[in-house]
Amino acid sequence: MSSGISSVLTNLSTSDHTVVVSINIFVALLCACIVIGHLLEENRWMNESITAIAIGLCTGVIILLTTGGTSSHIFVFSEDLFFIYLLPPIIFNAGFQVKKKQFFRNFTTIMLFGAVGTLVSFFIIFFGAKKIFEKMDIGDLDLGDYLAIGAIFSATDSVCTLQVLNQDETPLLYSLVFGEGVVNDATSVVLFNAIQNFDLTHINIWSVVELIGNFLYLFIISTLLGVFAGLLSAYIIKKLYFGRHSTDREVAIMILMAYLSYMLAELFDLSAILTVFFCGIVMSHYTWHNVTESSRVTTKHIFATLSFIAEIFIFLYVGMDALDIEKWKLVQTSPGKSVGVSSILLGLVLVGRAAFVFPLSYISNLAKKSTTEKIDFKQQITIWWAGLMRGAVSVALAYNQFTRAGHTQLPGNAIMITSTITVVLFSTVVFGMMTKPLVRLMLHPQKYFSSMISSEPSSPKSFIVPLLGNEQESEFDLGHNVPRPTSIGMLLATSSHTVHRYWRKFDNAFMRPVFGGRGFVPFVPGSPTEQSVHLPRSPQQSIHQTH
Amino acid sequence: MSSGISSVLTNLSTSDHTVVVSINIFVALLCACIVIGHLLEENRWMNESITAIAIGLCTGVIILLTTGGTSSHIFVFSEDLFFIYLLPPIIFNAGFQVKKKQFFRNFTTIMLFGAVGTLVSFFIIFFGAKKIFEKMDIGDLDLGDYLAIGAIFSATDSVCTLQVLNQDETPLLYSLVFGEGVVNDATSVVLFNAIQNFDLTHINIWSVVELIGNFLYLFIISTLLGVFAGLLSAYIIKKLYFGRHSTDREVAIMILMAYLSYMLAELFDLSAILTVFFCGIVMSHYTWHNVTESSRVTTKHIFATLSFIAEIFIFLYVGMDALDIEKWKLVQTSPGKSVGVSSILLGLVLVGRAAFVFPLSYISNLAKKSTTEKIDFKQQITIWWAGLMRGAVSVALAYNQFTRAGHTQLPGNAIMITSTITVVLFSTVVFGMMTKPLVRLMLHPQKYFSSMISSEPSSPKSFIVPLLGNEQESEFDLGHNVPRPTSIGMLLATSSHTVHRYWRKFDNAFMRPVFGGRGFVPFVPGSPTEQSVHLPRSPQQSIHQTH
Repeated sequence: MSSGISSVLTNLSTSDHTVVVSINIFVALLCACIVIGHLLEENRWMNESITAIAIGLCTGVIILLTTGGTSSHIFVFSEDLFFIYLLPPIIFNAGFQVKKKQFFRNFTTIMLFGAVGTLVSFFIIFFGAKKIFEKMDIGDLDLGDYLAIGAIFSATDSVCTLQVLNQDETPLLYSLVFGEGVVNDATSVVLFNAIQNFDLTHINIWSVVELIGNFLYLFIISTLLGVFAGLLSAYIIKKLYFGRHSTDREVAIMILMAYLSYMLAELFDLSAILTVFFCGIVMSHYTWHNVTESSRVTTKHIFATLSFIAEIFIFLYVGMDALDIEKWKLVQTSPGKSVGVSSILLGLVLVGRAAFVFPLSYISNLAKKSTTEKIDFKQQITIWWAGLMRGAVSVALAYNQFTRAGHTQLPGNAIMITSTITVVLFSTVVFGMMTKPLVRLMLHPQKYFSSMISSEPSSPKSFIVPLLGNEQESEFDLGHNVPRPTSIGMLLATSSHTVHRYWRKFDNAFMRPVFGGRGFVPFVPGSPTEQSVHLPRSPQQSIHQTH
Repeated sequence: MSSGISSVLTNLSTSDHTVVVSINIFVALLCACIVIGHLLEENRWMNESITAIAIGLCTGVIILLTTGGTSSHIFVFSEDLFFIYLLPPIIFNAGFQVKKKQFFRNFTTIMLFGAVGTLVSFFIIFFGAKKIFEKMDIGDLDLGDYLAIGAIFSATDSVCTLQVLNQDETPLLYSLVFGEGVVNDATSVVLFNAIQNFDLTHINIWSVVELIGNFLYLFIISTLLGVFAGLLSAYIIKKLYFGRHSTDREVAIMILMAYLSYMLAELFDLSAILTVFFCGIVMSHYTWHNVTESSRVTTKHIFATLSFIAEIFIFLYVGMDALDIEKWKLVQTSPGKSVGVSSILLGLVLVGRAAFVFPLSYISNLAKKSTTEKIDFKQQITIWWAGLMRGAVSVALAYNQFTRAGHTQLPGNAIMITSTITVVLFSTVVFGMMTKPLVRLMLHPQKYFSSMISSEPSSPKSFIVPLLGNEQESEFDLGHNVPRPTSIGMLLATSSHTVHRYWRKFDNAFMRPVFGGRGFVPFVPGSPTEQSVHLPRSPQQSIHQTH
């Protein structure tokens, strides 16, 4: 095996054999991550991301030793690989599995944190980096580079925290952290692209207005494209009854149309992340209800699995790539400076996030009438903490900015690449390890309180997760029609959400009859719903009724 | 869009935008194929492969017109793409979905057709092509090229016929055609590789013996590797109870380990096709029973879906690529010769197949005691017909042999590439269209007879396909324990299969307790089987019991 690895690295041409060896090592490592991640599931410090990074680091060391210190990774990281193949399943799955009720109820707060918050964080990191780094003499970075640094370090990675939070115990917190994560991804990528295309030589008030206008245009058009793709898939599957002949066609068309929405957005230079996220939401609201029972189980799990594999893949790569000698060569001469830059960036990340979480929470609380809907201080700290990790998006953006054609050898660029890797590794591993204990400390005392404001039945995970059924939507309806003792706070809260109620009316009167959705697919013989008539009631349904 | 396509084709660098445009077009075309394939489902002439080829041809024409006649395809076909990404899911799914009882009962016949038959066909096509083409002056082809032609045109594509045959109505025929298809794929690829590595300058009896020895070694080691990978996955999942924490991990590990088995075989220059096929068989026999209910549904469908998408992708590409101007340029000067070569090859294919199907069927029938197990003449004709189509494996092998470094411009190579494409298109479209009517003509009168020898309950497809359940194995066991009036022939047949019975004993006594399998996973709390205790009995099970 060792000769195989070295042959990969000595001749970096993409010959047949090279590709085969790389794939073998990567697939084997992915398997190892899954098995070890499973074994460490109960561990209070570890999680999947840290495991993958650790395994990546170990493999990097082994490759480094085998090749005599020439290289530490197998693939050359390509942005294409990340943005075309790995990111789409992760973001689509986020939209597909999101609890829509919570997401839309907290929509304003999520947008406040995700869009406005990211902008605040961006400006603080940008100004801070510009002021401090200019005095430090770390190489020649221009204005565009400083703006890029702001965008790169505003992109959070909340996967870690989401693994710890419980969607049933703390629905408000979960939906805020989750929603902010997705909107933040989109915002930082859109911001980054806007900066790259922005003419920095002629800055005036109009160009800034244009930038903001462009930003809003991207947000709206991208969302609409995603919604359109989702509705189209729902309409096609409802009209044609694919399930009559083949389950595979249904699953295939859902996967392909979701991916097509992402790629179309990329083609038209929109925010593909937003597009595929909203495509996921619409697909889970309409399309998912139009397919056969087995297609539902299949799509639900396969999207989660693909997302899971893509995430591990990314962390594995980040770990492996961290030891790349090339990058550290230029930094070796001044290790102190590198540590200094990384520390400053980490500090800016901490401050930049604090600077918007607490003020924006205050503003958001002002608009809420009921006390149960307000974000208390401990929750604010959890939200602040959840967004401190930096992940694969930061790495991908940093590579894009600082390794473009011939730029790699400049000291300024080299130090920014290594600092990005350092910040990502440190925040993911150190902050990540502290997340489980911190969240427990913050939320445990008020566990009962938070379950009070939950409209979801706080059923144990072992029931919900493996059985699925129609969980998503049935909760939605039950919460509305059956007022239970635990949902007093919720009822108060919903009363203020008249927009949401109008949407429900519109959805039931127009959208669902056309695009399908729970209970709105006609029972035509041969149609996808036909089976469920013959089927015994799914266990999930019984759980909900007897609850 | 047209400017996008032309920009793709004028600068063939794999820039960001090029890749995005190509993926968009391909994914959109895949969606179109699925929708149109669904709409034409009831059509007696069409099937999915022909639809995909037709759409590919149309797209090729459009691109040709848009680009002003410079090119007709988007991707440059790479063997890697085919052998590393598209073929594995197709072959794995074949192994995963095969009815193991039928497959192993007819194992000898399948190996006879698949291995010996392919060799007979190979020799006939090789000698025929050598004798005829040498007189035709079509360019300088050496002995290695003629041997390669033999291997290229021995690789059948029985997908088309399998879509028409009914596994429940004609289980014997289905398993023969299906099994032959897979063994044939493996044999022709192994043969092709053996020829390429074979020293043609010093041929003597020992080198031929060595070739045969090498061939057998590849067959056995590849099979063992596949079995080992399957058993390992079963053991890991059984021991670790992944389902306790996460369904995604189970699904991920099954996908990754199946792929790893294929890539490992590629790494060690084994027959990856055989490896992944047997890995699929073992996984469906052991691993599949160790996972949670929802993982079972998910894996079953997702493997079928991936295989389905890969198949359409291949046919779409073959159609699109057929119009590539480059290839036809050298042939333009002598169109008659090109038609001649293609016709001769088609003739050789017809003869080469007839030369083994009928004699080998005779031999196979001699060994069978009961008349119901014998292959009658109409079935022989169907088997002969099923293997006439040539598909993606032929194209991939032809590209490998005739487009290697600088060889493309030689007239002999150019004419072989175009002839291969012509044979593939003609056989898939023309023979393919005639398959449905022919199979109906051949098999309809004896429909009731063939269902007599079936041990499977001939339940309508609409029940089996969407519900799945434990179908595979439950049939297996029921057929053994409950003699039903329809299975008299079968009982006679099984009595002769003592090997199979010993295997069953061994399986129950040793294999299943270690590796899991139906009914052999202990009911430990938290284990994957725990749920099924609480679950209502699956509809599939009830169907089997009440049948």
